[in-house]
Amino acid sequence: MKKIKVGILGATGSVGQRFVQLLDGHPWFELEALFASERSVGKKYKEVAKWFLPYKMPDEAAEMVVKSMDDVSEIRDIAVLFSALPGTIASEVEKRYAQAGYAVSSNVSVHRMEPDVPLVIPEINADHLALIAVQKEKRGWDGFIMTNPNCSAIVLTLSLKPLMRYGIKEVRVSTMQAVSGAGYAGVPSMAILDNVIPFIGNEEDKMESEPQKILGTLEGSEIKNATFNVCASCHRVPVMDGHTEAVWVKFEESVSEEEVKKAFMDFTTDIKTPFAPEKAIILREEQDRPQPKLDRDAGKGMSVSVGRIRRGRMENEIKYIAQGHNTIRGAAGASILNAEVLLERGYI
Amino acid sequence: MKKIKVGILGATGSVGQRFVQLLDGHPWFELEALFASERSVGKKYKEVAKWFLPYKMPDEAAEMVVKSMDDVSEIRDIAVLFSALPGTIASEVEKRYAQAGYAVSSNVSVHRMEPDVPLVIPEINADHLALIAVQKEKRGWDGFIMTNPNCSAIVLTLSLKPLMRYGIKEVRVSTMQAVSGAGYAGVPSMAILDNVIPFIGNEEDKMESEPQKILGTLEGSEIKNATFNVCASCHRVPVMDGHTEAVWVKFEESVSEEEVKKAFMDFTTDIKTPFAPEKAIILREEQDRPQPKLDRDAGKGMSVSVGRIRRGRMENEIKYIAQGHNTIRGAAGASILNAEVLLERGYI
Amino acid sequence: MKKIKVGILGATGSVGQRFVQLLDGHPWFELEALFASERSVGKKYKEVAKWFLPYKMPDEAAEMVVKSMDDVSEIRDIAVLFSALPGTIASEVEKRYAQAGYAVSSNVSVHRMEPDVPLVIPEINADHLALIAVQKEKRGWDGFIMTNPNCSAIVLTLSLKPLMRYGIKEVRVSTMQAVSGAGYAGVPSMAILDNVIPFIGNEEDKMESEPQKILGTLEGSEIKNATFNVCASCHRVPVMDGHTEAVWVKFEESVSEEEVKKAFMDFTTDIKTPFAPEKAIILREEQDRPQPKLDRDAGKGMSVSVGRIRRGRMENEIKYIAQGHNTIRGAAGASILNAEVLLERGYI
Amino acid sequence: MKKIKVGILGATGSVGQRFVQLLDGHPWFELEALFASERSVGKKYKEVAKWFLPYKMPDEAAEMVVKSMDDVSEIRDIAVLFSALPGTIASEVEKRYAQAGYAVSSNVSVHRMEPDVPLVIPEINADHLALIAVQKEKRGWDGFIMTNPNCSAIVLTLSLKPLMRYGIKEVRVSTMQAVSGAGYAGVPSMAILDNVIPFIGNEEDKMESEPQKILGTLEGSEIKNATFNVCASCHRVPVMDGHTEAVWVKFEESVSEEEVKKAFMDFTTDIKTPFAPEKAIILREEQDRPQPKLDRDAGKGMSVSVGRIRRGRMENEIKYIAQGHNTIRGAAGASILNAEVLLERGYI
Repeated sequence: MKKIKVGILGATGSVGQRFVQLLDGHPWFELEALFASERSVGKKYKEVAKWFLPYKMPDEAAEMVVKSMDDVSEIRDIAVLFSALPGTIASEVEKRYAQAGYAVSSNVSVHRMEPDVPLVIPEINADHLALIAVQKEKRGWDGFIMTNPNCSAIVLTLSLKPLMRYGIKEVRVSTMQAVSGAGYAGVPSMAILDNVIPFIGNEEDKMESEPQKILGTLEGSEIKNATFNVCASCHRVPVMDGHTEAVWVKFEESVSEEEVKKAFMDFTTDIKTPFAPEKAIILREEQDRPQPKLDRDAGKGMSVSVGRIRRGRMENEIKYIAQGHNTIRGAAGASILNAEVLLERGYI
Repeated sequence: MKKIKVGILGATGSVGQRFVQLLDGHPWFELEALFASERSVGKKYKEVAKWFLPYKMPDEAAEMVVKSMDDVSEIRDIAVLFSALPGTIASEVEKRYAQAGYAVSSNVSVHRMEPDVPLVIPEINADHLALIAVQKEKRGWDGFIMTNPNCSAIVLTLSLKPLMRYGIKEVRVSTMQAVSGAGYAGVPSMAILDNVIPFIGNEEDKMESEPQKILGTLEGSEIKNATFNVCASCHRVPVMDGHTEAVWVKFEESVSEEEVKKAFMDFTTDIKTPFAPEKAIILREEQDRPQPKLDRDAGKGMSVSVGRIRRGRMENEIKYIAQGHNTIRGAAGASILNAEVLLERGYI
Repeated sequence: MKKIKVGILGATGSVGQRFVQLLDGHPWFELEALFASERSVGKKYKEVAKWFLPYKMPDEAAEMVVKSMDDVSEIRDIAVLFSALPGTIASEVEKRYAQAGYAVSSNVSVHRMEPDVPLVIPEINADHLALIAVQKEKRGWDGFIMTNPNCSAIVLTLSLKPLMRYGIKEVRVSTMQAVSGAGYAGVPSMAILDNVIPFIGNEEDKMESEPQKILGTLEGSEIKNATFNVCASCHRVPVMDGHTEAVWVKFEESVSEEEVKKAFMDFTTDIKTPFAPEKAIILREEQDRPQPKLDRDAGKGMSVSVGRIRRGRMENEIKYIAQGHNTIRGAAGASILNAEVLLERGYI
Repeated sequence: MKKIKVGILGATGSVGQRFVQLLDGHPWFELEALFASERSVGKKYKEVAKWFLPYKMPDEAAEMVVKSMDDVSEIRDIAVLFSALPGTIASEVEKRYAQAGYAVSSNVSVHRMEPDVPLVIPEINADHLALIAVQKEKRGWDGFIMTNPNCSAIVLTLSLKPLMRYGIKEVRVSTMQAVSGAGYAGVPSMAILDNVIPFIGNEEDKMESEPQKILGTLEGSEIKNATFNVCASCHRVPVMDGHTEAVWVKFEESVSEEEVKKAFMDFTTDIKTPFAPEKAIILREEQDRPQPKLDRDAGKGMSVSVGRIRRGRMENEIKYIAQGHNTIRGAAGASILNAEVLLERGYI
């Protein structure tokens, strides 16, 4: 199979670097172009990226000359653009490229909640990709924007999917989030060493609105959101990678711990593309798992681990812990998996 | 005023050292005796305590010869014994000393939930000290045992007290707890560096049962527990001191953020003893406070800081953050404050 | 005694905040003005300083309106200006104020090595203040600039002073430096969590040149530098405050461990101003001290702790550990102590 | 090729787990038996090992029943025993197994400095394996003990090897060591969070004596030690894995930075067994490398990274930074590499 050429918008930042690393050696995609802000344009990637991943920077990417995002015309042989742009410029740039005919697989929040933009975790709602046709027609674009959820919302929503069968009424979630979620310079060490910061800008809003769209049903050309409420409290802790979430789920009726465990264990999907983990959800039976340091790399960082399933003291309520790698399953890996499904299903 | 002589049971451990440090220069109490396990008996405290506090070990304590807990008779001039014993031996030792006539102010969990043992946060339920007479009569003891709550429960319960006026229906709490709560060797660095451990043995049980007793009402010779349910999820994070808690409170009726803030701000108590902080509850208005590193030492470690009061997405529910110093307000300082109230109110 | 009015240049940064905190309640100095960059000018200090110290921001400072550094004329009642300015603008601003008649006590490196600028650790070389007259005359200024050394150099040089009696030939030093030395946003958490960064810009140069000037002798109007060589290797570690330094000192002749210990223990000074610690050097005899967490606050952060004195395997060489608080003894506290000595000795 | 059967003595501890993980899927060795202390004997490995590595416990090891070290007779089909025993019992157990005919590849320090025990880093002194014959004859054993150096000494000595050509006169080294070197419960989090501990028991002695033996020359049946002195200062820092070392090397004559870099770059070996890294020494040219978080996994944890080569201020002296993974290159991986060379060269 001839590889599909792809590019990265915002290639020098924290998530951009993850895209570069994860796309290295990808069986379907070939990295063709790196885009970044004007001060990097024209320079080699290795000269402008402050590489911080514990892997060698891929040689091909290292030598690539960073391109400008001003001219959409010169990169015609690229099919997919992964977007890790800063929120401030993402909207305009992504729209420009989508209009010009590219498939934009975006990790940015700005377009996620627009009705005609698919917000996808393939193991849950790959059928929402049908919105692509709606979007293209409505906007008159040759290309389109598709999005993956917020890092914390992905971990939560994947863990909720198998429980939907029991009727979810309310969800409360308290997060303990890794510093890599804020970007390389996002959290000063003076702020977080020996500390917890109980605030992450806009994070609670995203966690409280995205799951309902993802778990919603496609009816005609619209998503009908799932109807339960989510209430989130988000906190930063001194952890490099991996978001840990304490979740309370109130069901419509009484559900046992064993039923919940079984739902997690039985969860399977038909997504079999390269980045799809063998198990999207891994149930840990130990009393003190999942832990970010031990579980974040499960399924090459694409599995969500759950554990400590126990009855709460409230009626019809179960509490458990969910954990996932925030820059792989929660960001760059999620966008790549989405693009794989696009390709497999003929959208590109 | 002549000072009251006091001793410490279990003086070498993490909480024991806090007692030694906090009692140094206490205006009412004079440290007279240190007790520890047999391998320390007969040696100077400075030779057996692996001191880890960032203060100089008090000179007088340093030179004290550690006593055995086998013979209760030789320490007759001591009025109060603070207990920081390991759970395994605490029950038997505390009962022996109480029977022999001492007031035991215990930080250990073993006797907390017994109906005739006061479980006290003085700003909330100093009236529960009336159980002392019940206990002495029922057990035929000359002395008695009084207890302070679990470290996480103290922080939570203090924050709940001002909200009782609105009618609390349900409480959910997710903790991010400091390593000092587990004792000096309790949490290996290999376990917690760059990690979260979502399990602390028996902690959730304590948080789910102690608040109702503390917030209960004394009726005759019995405590009638408060009736709301608490559901806790407890987690260890890489923080030295200070427990941070994300709290959801569901009220009987709708309560506004402003009403909750006002309740916190208006909260005052009549406890004016040396260890009583000027403000038991400090309301932080910044969007990212309280934080353990910045707020744990507020009120010399005896104040609980609250912040981020916001409406949840659930009916009649408010969420907020509470934070307190786990080995001061949550342990040794709590026991000392309790003993001060004992003295002030004539129980010793 | 009427207090002397003082101001802070660069008041919002990491060291600037330390000045604000340490000057609160100072018996000789009264904080009169805070200066910062243009975007803060005209706003209250509490609105522009991202306060990160675990103490309450002093009320008076909180309400002060930040002043511009453009106009030197309006602050005529101030005698001393403490400078915590960024290196890029410090030179010009400090010179302007010194010329206009102020005593500038600077923590910035830019003027330290100029021959007519005193570089002072009062316990060592308060006599170097005689350079002030030289400087004023040579430059035709009404005021003057005096400086304190680099944070790591202060810790090292204080520990070397008592050893000078034995004839120092060579010094090698390896540092393990706290993140607060780099300023609030200086070290991203992603860079330093679970890591060591073996590089700090220009730090080794400062450590290799400042000690000789400080330990030099004033001959006429010039400092004759001490003649030993220093070779430094500087590293950042995940510690909030407190620089730890492994030091090798090669002497002219054989010196025993006991002689070195005695030199440290016997070290006394005639500096008795408010910020002068009771003991400038504290000898720890434990095998695993000094440690930053346990020893940085010794002497209110103004003492340097030394320990682990042992013979090396090289001829006439001793190795030991030195530790000091980098933003108190190593920065703001050092500048304040210097200003106290200025006042006591009639320079202001 | 038929795989050689191997066992692990002390399989449940920190280094023991590394052996289990690294031997999983080894092309030449097949894990046949796990040995641990009496309280684990008879139980499945998964029941007794508190697994802390961020990889799944290998399935085969998980199900193995832990064996007792009392009876050497029952494991006759095993050729190599890797030893990660506690120092207290290692000597007796290792000798018993060696006497009984096994090749013991030991990570323990107890036998390292015995004249007839090879202390080997194969890229440096595989020829020292000739001591095996000496040992067997002298002791009348069927088997033998071979050892790998201390974790810090391996990193240092590998970096010194290429510099030997210039004539090394003196070495000083300051370490910043990871907590995993002390074993799972070796360093309490309360001791090391936000801290440096400037003491590691016996570590300096090992660093000051092992390099000379490793870099010594085999003359007849004896090792003639290299003659330079090493002086070490050893410190623990809050890092999980990877020891970082600041090294000063004084040469017999003047050596330039470029000569040292070239020596590192040119270093090659003829060791080509499975665990031998492609490059035993990796030269990093960035100004802030090597760093443990970024470089410890280089060469699958078997490469030592060096960088920051610069002239010191002392005559004929160069300083640089060396870094290596302490539990892979510095412990379990080193023992396995040694055993591979044993096999390749016909010693087993």
